[in-house]
Amino acid sequence: MATAAIIGGAGYAGAELIRLLDRHPSFDLRVVTSDADAGMPVADVYPALEGIVPDTFSPHDDPAALECDAAFLAVPHTAGMKHARRLVEAGVAVIDLSADFRLPLETYEAAYRTAHACPDLLAQAAFGQPELNRDALDEMHDRRIAGFPVIVGCAGCFPTAVALAAAPALRAGLIDLAFPVIADCLSGVSGAGRKPTARTSFCTANESMEAYGLPRHRHEPEMEMELSLALPRDPGDDRPGCPPSRVDAPGLSASAPKTPQVMFTPHLVPVSRGMIATVHLRLGSHADPARFRRAYEDAYASSPFVRVLKEGASPRSSSVMGTNDARIGLFPDRKDGWATAVCAIDNLGKGAAGQAVQVANIVFGFDESEGLLGLARAL
Amino acid sequence: MATAAIIGGAGYAGAELIRLLDRHPSFDLRVVTSDADAGMPVADVYPALEGIVPDTFSPHDDPAALECDAAFLAVPHTAGMKHARRLVEAGVAVIDLSADFRLPLETYEAAYRTAHACPDLLAQAAFGQPELNRDALDEMHDRRIAGFPVIVGCAGCFPTAVALAAAPALRAGLIDLAFPVIADCLSGVSGAGRKPTARTSFCTANESMEAYGLPRHRHEPEMEMELSLALPRDPGDDRPGCPPSRVDAPGLSASAPKTPQVMFTPHLVPVSRGMIATVHLRLGSHADPARFRRAYEDAYASSPFVRVLKEGASPRSSSVMGTNDARIGLFPDRKDGWATAVCAIDNLGKGAAGQAVQVANIVFGFDESEGLLGLARAL
Amino acid sequence: MATAAIIGGAGYAGAELIRLLDRHPSFDLRVVTSDADAGMPVADVYPALEGIVPDTFSPHDDPAALECDAAFLAVPHTAGMKHARRLVEAGVAVIDLSADFRLPLETYEAAYRTAHACPDLLAQAAFGQPELNRDALDEMHDRRIAGFPVIVGCAGCFPTAVALAAAPALRAGLIDLAFPVIADCLSGVSGAGRKPTARTSFCTANESMEAYGLPRHRHEPEMEMELSLALPRDPGDDRPGCPPSRVDAPGLSASAPKTPQVMFTPHLVPVSRGMIATVHLRLGSHADPARFRRAYEDAYASSPFVRVLKEGASPRSSSVMGTNDARIGLFPDRKDGWATAVCAIDNLGKGAAGQAVQVANIVFGFDESEGLLGLARAL
Amino acid sequence: MATAAIIGGAGYAGAELIRLLDRHPSFDLRVVTSDADAGMPVADVYPALEGIVPDTFSPHDDPAALECDAAFLAVPHTAGMKHARRLVEAGVAVIDLSADFRLPLETYEAAYRTAHACPDLLAQAAFGQPELNRDALDEMHDRRIAGFPVIVGCAGCFPTAVALAAAPALRAGLIDLAFPVIADCLSGVSGAGRKPTARTSFCTANESMEAYGLPRHRHEPEMEMELSLALPRDPGDDRPGCPPSRVDAPGLSASAPKTPQVMFTPHLVPVSRGMIATVHLRLGSHADPARFRRAYEDAYASSPFVRVLKEGASPRSSSVMGTNDARIGLFPDRKDGWATAVCAIDNLGKGAAGQAVQVANIVFGFDESEGLLGLARAL
Repeated sequence: MATAAIIGGAGYAGAELIRLLDRHPSFDLRVVTSDADAGMPVADVYPALEGIVPDTFSPHDDPAALECDAAFLAVPHTAGMKHARRLVEAGVAVIDLSADFRLPLETYEAAYRTAHACPDLLAQAAFGQPELNRDALDEMHDRRIAGFPVIVGCAGCFPTAVALAAAPALRAGLIDLAFPVIADCLSGVSGAGRKPTARTSFCTANESMEAYGLPRHRHEPEMEMELSLALPRDPGDDRPGCPPSRVDAPGLSASAPKTPQVMFTPHLVPVSRGMIATVHLRLGSHADPARFRRAYEDAYASSPFVRVLKEGASPRSSSVMGTNDARIGLFPDRKDGWATAVCAIDNLGKGAAGQAVQVANIVFGFDESEGLLGLARAL
Repeated sequence: MATAAIIGGAGYAGAELIRLLDRHPSFDLRVVTSDADAGMPVADVYPALEGIVPDTFSPHDDPAALECDAAFLAVPHTAGMKHARRLVEAGVAVIDLSADFRLPLETYEAAYRTAHACPDLLAQAAFGQPELNRDALDEMHDRRIAGFPVIVGCAGCFPTAVALAAAPALRAGLIDLAFPVIADCLSGVSGAGRKPTARTSFCTANESMEAYGLPRHRHEPEMEMELSLALPRDPGDDRPGCPPSRVDAPGLSASAPKTPQVMFTPHLVPVSRGMIATVHLRLGSHADPARFRRAYEDAYASSPFVRVLKEGASPRSSSVMGTNDARIGLFPDRKDGWATAVCAIDNLGKGAAGQAVQVANIVFGFDESEGLLGLARAL
Repeated sequence: MATAAIIGGAGYAGAELIRLLDRHPSFDLRVVTSDADAGMPVADVYPALEGIVPDTFSPHDDPAALECDAAFLAVPHTAGMKHARRLVEAGVAVIDLSADFRLPLETYEAAYRTAHACPDLLAQAAFGQPELNRDALDEMHDRRIAGFPVIVGCAGCFPTAVALAAAPALRAGLIDLAFPVIADCLSGVSGAGRKPTARTSFCTANESMEAYGLPRHRHEPEMEMELSLALPRDPGDDRPGCPPSRVDAPGLSASAPKTPQVMFTPHLVPVSRGMIATVHLRLGSHADPARFRRAYEDAYASSPFVRVLKEGASPRSSSVMGTNDARIGLFPDRKDGWATAVCAIDNLGKGAAGQAVQVANIVFGFDESEGLLGLARAL
Repeated sequence: MATAAIIGGAGYAGAELIRLLDRHPSFDLRVVTSDADAGMPVADVYPALEGIVPDTFSPHDDPAALECDAAFLAVPHTAGMKHARRLVEAGVAVIDLSADFRLPLETYEAAYRTAHACPDLLAQAAFGQPELNRDALDEMHDRRIAGFPVIVGCAGCFPTAVALAAAPALRAGLIDLAFPVIADCLSGVSGAGRKPTARTSFCTANESMEAYGLPRHRHEPEMEMELSLALPRDPGDDRPGCPPSRVDAPGLSASAPKTPQVMFTPHLVPVSRGMIATVHLRLGSHADPARFRRAYEDAYASSPFVRVLKEGASPRSSSVMGTNDARIGLFPDRKDGWATAVCAIDNLGKGAAGQAVQVANIVFGFDESEGLLGLARAL
């Protein structure tokens, strides 16, 4: 049994973390913080969570968090790094859901237009997307046992969906990297966060849809970093699985293959939760439909969460709502040498809180799926 | 004033036609048919339409339709051609919303896997997408005056949205045709028609989204035909604007440029009405952002319905709901030589009933926008 | 042709007023104000309204409003009275959509817990619910011609729906006033206004419903005032139609019958627009189903907007969405001597902007339905 | 561990039963039937249920069901009794979700206009609403141990919500039975069942709401029966808790107090799942707010599922979605001697599948809440 704190429990990802940890057999939730709602009952903000323990938000700097084994940071981007140092220094394993520990330093500072507050921690952080980067997380488990600092920067929701849809084909060397990976994605409104805005008001979002974030969404660099993790290696290439995962990480070597380029277009859709990534991939000359499909089946054969659908099937986002599951439909034989992979996840599940718990399970040596199984509702 | 019949008034496009013609200053709606609901008050099927005249569905073969000046066919694909001949022979101008008169014969028969019932009429039909093919519709107006058969096969909803988003750049020669036009589209549930099915049930469609129709949707050939209409011509190329628009249409000449290829992926989204086409176009070497934008502004400068949004703006589908409008956002400078154009229409407006009325206005010599103006609701 | 200003055009009722006045044949919209959004294009706030004139919000104190013939006040409760005086003094006819001029002084001050800023104007104001209080509005028309101050306090959305459902039976003396009128109402989210809040966020409101405002909603006094307008009069009773409508209004005389009591319970429902009032009425001893129904048919026989449905039918809110219509289903024979009347309106149409335009039409001597006809969309 | 069959697993209640039993620690799901979908994978009908065991629908008469310890009947009304006899005779404990075993014979035959196929079984059936009728269910447990036939007719969704809201006040003698219990209820679309119809199509139900089933919904008799179970007894009154629960049940004795009358008005609202019952109760002369509230707190003090909200709070339906919970808001001091109780449940949870599992837990001697705990999602 490990004790856990949620720093930033009043946002949507935080609320989903509360729900998941409340029923988790091996994490004992002790602290849930929110600066804006400190002192307020959790159930006043989220009536559905009536009955959880603890029942009240404490402030972000609640010292009780420093006594916990694990802290989940569910604060906004650029806020994660403000809390990480004192937690790490107190020996707390930090699982960050913000963007602050998931990108190489320069990529981060360019995409988020801010200096990173703790580049030394970033250099030690593992990238948290278990299907793509399991080795680095297992290594983080060993570091925890050995008493080294533990910090994981979990993948974002869109990058997770796109990577799950694209990585197996890239890893199998089936994709022509001269072409961009074209990722047209649909997201529910919760992806925009809990803060009330005109754009996320019911009357604006309801009965409407739109592409947004064009021409260049700041998630593109993260997607490209993730997909580069999946590239096949030359013999002798000793790049670590995840560039920023170790203090000695040399980053992408000069001999690294061309980084995949991603052209990403998100769309806002009137559902509360859910995400579809429709990813178009230009096949290389030696790809064929059977090899394409096999690459995915092999990649996810042992995953408790990722399911490759049978031929011709395309996933519905509702089928994974409320779960940590991902479902992938494969269409390897589209026009003109292109293939399409469609991935459905819950943006707050596999795209945020679910994945963070999965990462924590690995880091703490629990079964990867502990506290995360269960079917979505059929409707 | 012209009299009008709607053949197939009980479907969603038919109901929208009823609403539009009910307030149209120059069409007088006389007949609304439905075989399944014949004899039933229109308001029993659509309570919102209480008060329209006529107030009752008559059967499809209602002879009163033969007395009308115009007939809108809003029956399903392959049903349109069953009604066209007797209407045309009675001198009624036929505006067909089904797929039956919008494609060249071979394309139609391959896509819909059926023999066409009246290829002679198809050969005389004009393709009904005014922004793309206005000349052929003006010609149809002249034919009507001269007493020749009048038949127009209106463009479908997805093809209309994709063509509005792609045609100006193609026509201006800015696109590299070696790459497919990649069209990721989102549609509201009404696009699937009124017939109740498990897939369009509230509890299935609500809170969900999915890509469908992969790997090859039958709308791709229509899109490719439409986009080929937009290609720049060589000097001496005397192909008519619309291949199937005249009895003497020679079809695409041997010297025709390569037909644009379209890779089309539709997504079902829980809104009743609305459509977004996000279209990715690989730019040719002489394209630049300013020329790209200018191509669209020039193409739609005189259109009462198509609005090119200012730089950086992307359209919301709700902004055109209930109207015949289209809005286009342009992002000419995306990664790696690609541009993106995003078009929003109402699938039942510009994508069906609105466009059909616009076509009829042209064919009857009314102002193109008659009965079609008015803002969408702000919410 | 009359010129018009909208004071408070950035809220939801204001946006609907813009849409209605933009197409109104006899009002020429000249000024649209918003303090928060002053200087901003209207289309930046409501993309659907792109193209309207004027295209920019001016501040509330825009002097151009003083030059207009009519001003619609669509500002929040207690803000309406701040703008009324200078407009009235400039000779502008004021149509107020807030609560500030629709209640007798004491009722207002008790319900809104504030002193009224201009009781003298309130004393001259007419209550704006044409089906209930037409005489006072006609009188206001005469006052306008004669150069007297013109001010109307339009009925609120819930009170309009409840009054339309209950007044005819009350007026016909069919109701036992010893029992409360029990009004269970459902409203779309736009009723809560445009200001983004946690409660009206998509992710909170979507897939949920709740009763709110209990035990005593401040609309109850307005409902009771309205229903008292409908009570049958004793011979010799010379109370005016609307207590606060004239300077000499004596208010309810001592001999007035017992005021109807209303027990009102609103429910929030995840639609953008729409309202259902389900109103239970205890029948008096001489009521019978036929008399009950006839009371409604007589009351609304000449109304262009209110439709009494045939026996057994209950209205769907979507059937009136976007219109100024009301539909009423009657069930005179429920258990134990109770009857139920169900009224559907659009809370932003007949419940706000539509009714205000209807009132303005009457005050300016235009046809009551000018600019307000047209069917709702069938879906 | 007990083995279980679901007869009628393809409907919405059936699908929810599958989900609940799939994770239930003490029931082992062995058989899921559907005549319409026999032989079809469950996941083809409900993709979310991919992975459950058994994975295929068998026909209703699958003999494997006769080998099970328990059978949940989730077939439509009048179909339940067709399957009950052979199951009961095979010694299977029958938990029926249809209306077939929840009403006294005459009430059933009047409300459903059909002769009951097995009145002898009905006479032995217990009424399945544990908070109201726990004794009869405990007795059914004893009968099961003793080898007697076991059959429970579970309460319907609306009656459950209304009874939870009204019964404690009735039981405490605080209500004046001369007045009807006025129950205005809101239900999500799943309440209408899975069969696709025009009314439950997305485009009809979305963005709309309506009252329906007036003037007299057939659930009224069930509500009245349930509420009569809650009435306080005179000394010497030896009526059993549940009239139809034992072969020797004499029914309501001649000296029984007046049956409560219910005036029930359901409303259809565009959510997939969820139910609100807003119940108005006329207080008796000796009622006061404190006693009213205390009656509910006492009644539900030991319930793992029913929560009485703090003063002034009203439940949101989303707070219980996906659970077997009920939440009740109390407003004892409304106008004119009336009180209002508002109850929120999930119509497929506490209103159907959840309650059936709760009933089965009791009948099989498991903990009442086994397999039924867990929070709703916060969004």
